[in-house]
Amino acid sequence: MSPFHPIAGIKIGTACAQIKHSDRDDLAVFALVEGSTCAAVFTQNAFCAAPITLARQHLAATAPRFLLVNSGNANAGTGPAGLQAAQACCQRVAQLGNCAPTEVLPFSTGIIGQALPVHKIQTALPTALDNLDAQNWEKAARAIMTTDTVPKMASIPVFIDGQPVLTVTGITKGAGMIKPNMATMLAFIATDAAVTAPVLQTCLTRAVNTSFNRITIDGDTSTNDACVLVATGQSHLPVIDSVTHRYFGQLLIAVRHVCEELAKAIVRDGEGATKFIKVMVEQGSSEQECLEIAYAIANSPLVKTACFANDPNWGRILAAVGRAPVENFDISTVQIFLGDVCVVENGEVSANYTEEQGQRVMHAKDIQIRVLLGRGDEHARIWTCDFSYDYVKINAEYRT
Amino acid sequence: MSPFHPIAGIKIGTACAQIKHSDRDDLAVFALVEGSTCAAVFTQNAFCAAPITLARQHLAATAPRFLLVNSGNANAGTGPAGLQAAQACCQRVAQLGNCAPTEVLPFSTGIIGQALPVHKIQTALPTALDNLDAQNWEKAARAIMTTDTVPKMASIPVFIDGQPVLTVTGITKGAGMIKPNMATMLAFIATDAAVTAPVLQTCLTRAVNTSFNRITIDGDTSTNDACVLVATGQSHLPVIDSVTHRYFGQLLIAVRHVCEELAKAIVRDGEGATKFIKVMVEQGSSEQECLEIAYAIANSPLVKTACFANDPNWGRILAAVGRAPVENFDISTVQIFLGDVCVVENGEVSANYTEEQGQRVMHAKDIQIRVLLGRGDEHARIWTCDFSYDYVKINAEYRT
Repeated sequence: MSPFHPIAGIKIGTACAQIKHSDRDDLAVFALVEGSTCAAVFTQNAFCAAPITLARQHLAATAPRFLLVNSGNANAGTGPAGLQAAQACCQRVAQLGNCAPTEVLPFSTGIIGQALPVHKIQTALPTALDNLDAQNWEKAARAIMTTDTVPKMASIPVFIDGQPVLTVTGITKGAGMIKPNMATMLAFIATDAAVTAPVLQTCLTRAVNTSFNRITIDGDTSTNDACVLVATGQSHLPVIDSVTHRYFGQLLIAVRHVCEELAKAIVRDGEGATKFIKVMVEQGSSEQECLEIAYAIANSPLVKTACFANDPNWGRILAAVGRAPVENFDISTVQIFLGDVCVVENGEVSANYTEEQGQRVMHAKDIQIRVLLGRGDEHARIWTCDFSYDYVKINAEYRT
Repeated sequence: MSPFHPIAGIKIGTACAQIKHSDRDDLAVFALVEGSTCAAVFTQNAFCAAPITLARQHLAATAPRFLLVNSGNANAGTGPAGLQAAQACCQRVAQLGNCAPTEVLPFSTGIIGQALPVHKIQTALPTALDNLDAQNWEKAARAIMTTDTVPKMASIPVFIDGQPVLTVTGITKGAGMIKPNMATMLAFIATDAAVTAPVLQTCLTRAVNTSFNRITIDGDTSTNDACVLVATGQSHLPVIDSVTHRYFGQLLIAVRHVCEELAKAIVRDGEGATKFIKVMVEQGSSEQECLEIAYAIANSPLVKTACFANDPNWGRILAAVGRAPVENFDISTVQIFLGDVCVVENGEVSANYTEEQGQRVMHAKDIQIRVLLGRGDEHARIWTCDFSYDYVKINAEYRT
């Protein structure tokens, strides 16, 4: 994990509510200094979890003062009772923190379909609030883990004219795009810059589009995915109040950097993952068609098992490219590279390609698959992992 | 394998061309009586194989007299040389069979990206043509197998007023929707009915839409998929020359029955499959949205591993339903059944559901997942299989 920088205006407390385990923290509370702005991106899954519904409502109503996160239970598929449970937890935070319940955003990750243990959470909350400290980012990264094998954090200071002017720090948890019966991805990111809420939302949306929205483990989207960006306004920079503001670009670069580091960390810790795979599709006539092809490759179980086996199986990549829903696709202009090795051109295996070249690329831990379409200037890049025995093992045996 | 009925006007010969194995037939030739009509459906994959390109051209030019099929080599990803190789094989059949090369339709299945051994095929062809016999359907079903574990055949006579008036018989091979580096599905079906070519094409297209186009092993589409329907016109029925013809309905039912039996046989013999899973989505506002949801379930590695583990993991089904791209989706009207057991209603776990009920359903070899959307009258049904250790094993170790 990279070294991290605390964010002025953010304090974090953790506690063990014994939701699933009795020997580790599973609760994290983020206290945001008054005047903070907040942006968020939520799951597109129609079956979104109760905390997602409530967090959306609260964020639309007012600026939050607290983020409340629990692991071990997703409070998803729990109906009206689940919504009441999330509300009861927010009320307890509001009571302890002297704010309105709508100023608390709730997040849950863990098993779907079990009642949230409200009493356990309410009982543990005073401990979390007593422990509030700007240094607790790593503790929070550990508290939100489910079957993640490592905590995930990224942090970057931004320098202008040699001076550190703002900082962006974030944590995430994932381990699979959707875990076995689990609702998966959460990310909490903060900056000490002062940013108006609409501009902060634009910044987050743009950063998420090239990071968390460009990873896939198994093509699924969970019911609880959420990514939050808080701006505390504690730096000395002027308020960034427009996307044409002279510091917006620096902010976006820093937020994107943190999002990409966190997204890559999720892929590297994917269920059963032994390889990190970067899929680049270039020279497309639109970004959308590049993405369609990239996902066809990245979600192909055959390509993923070939990567697991160090097998330069270009036939599987070629078949995946060919089945992507792209109009008027002329395969004669397509080139496919494994790393720096051209394996396919003119619709057939490259004349100079040798199996040894391909195997050299595939034996590395990081593999790049690059497809040149020869029909335009657009491109897309996504990250994924391989598909191993352990993926099946983890997902078949999860509840036994 | 069900008992089969030969088709008057179709003779089949097989031979061992030693393409991949020296101890089994890998070549099949179908000789069609003069006057036969022919319909076909080909892969949508943009990287279609050389024989697919040629078969399309030949079928557009004239009515075929021979179908030539080899297993062991897909002749895909082979460029202009691959096209010449397929042409050379057609020429040899034409020479031996006294017809034009365009009257031969070529089909290949097997490894992608290796040159087709034209000489071996040309050398074995006289044996295949010497062996032509109406009884050789099962021999052909075995000759076209690649990693299929069983030959696949279906056959049905159609009775009108108690008299057998026409017959439909077919064979197929698959074993995965796309095999490890292999180009997969082929099906050859014939009837002794007399049917004009356009009507035969309509019949095949309709039958394929509810059979071969409704199965998925791993969401992939191979470069070589093809399904052919021949009508020899040797029955005593009048020519079926319109979809409103009084016998068209009976023909369609019989062809669809054979296609569905063959499609189900492919799923049951899917790579590493231990379960047969039927996914039904009903009460949709369009067939398309029902299909989107059905495929989201059937292609979810998490749902498939849960089935492998006999795990009634409704949270994974719910998450898959929720992530399907359906507009204005109100989850409160959705019900999900495992077999006859209601597991989800009103957006949460059903009040009366017990884990024991779910486990009873999941322990069977055949599992039905049924989703009621409560928003219309449309429906869709697809078949798939589970996802086991053996899927990863087969696909990771294939070339080692």
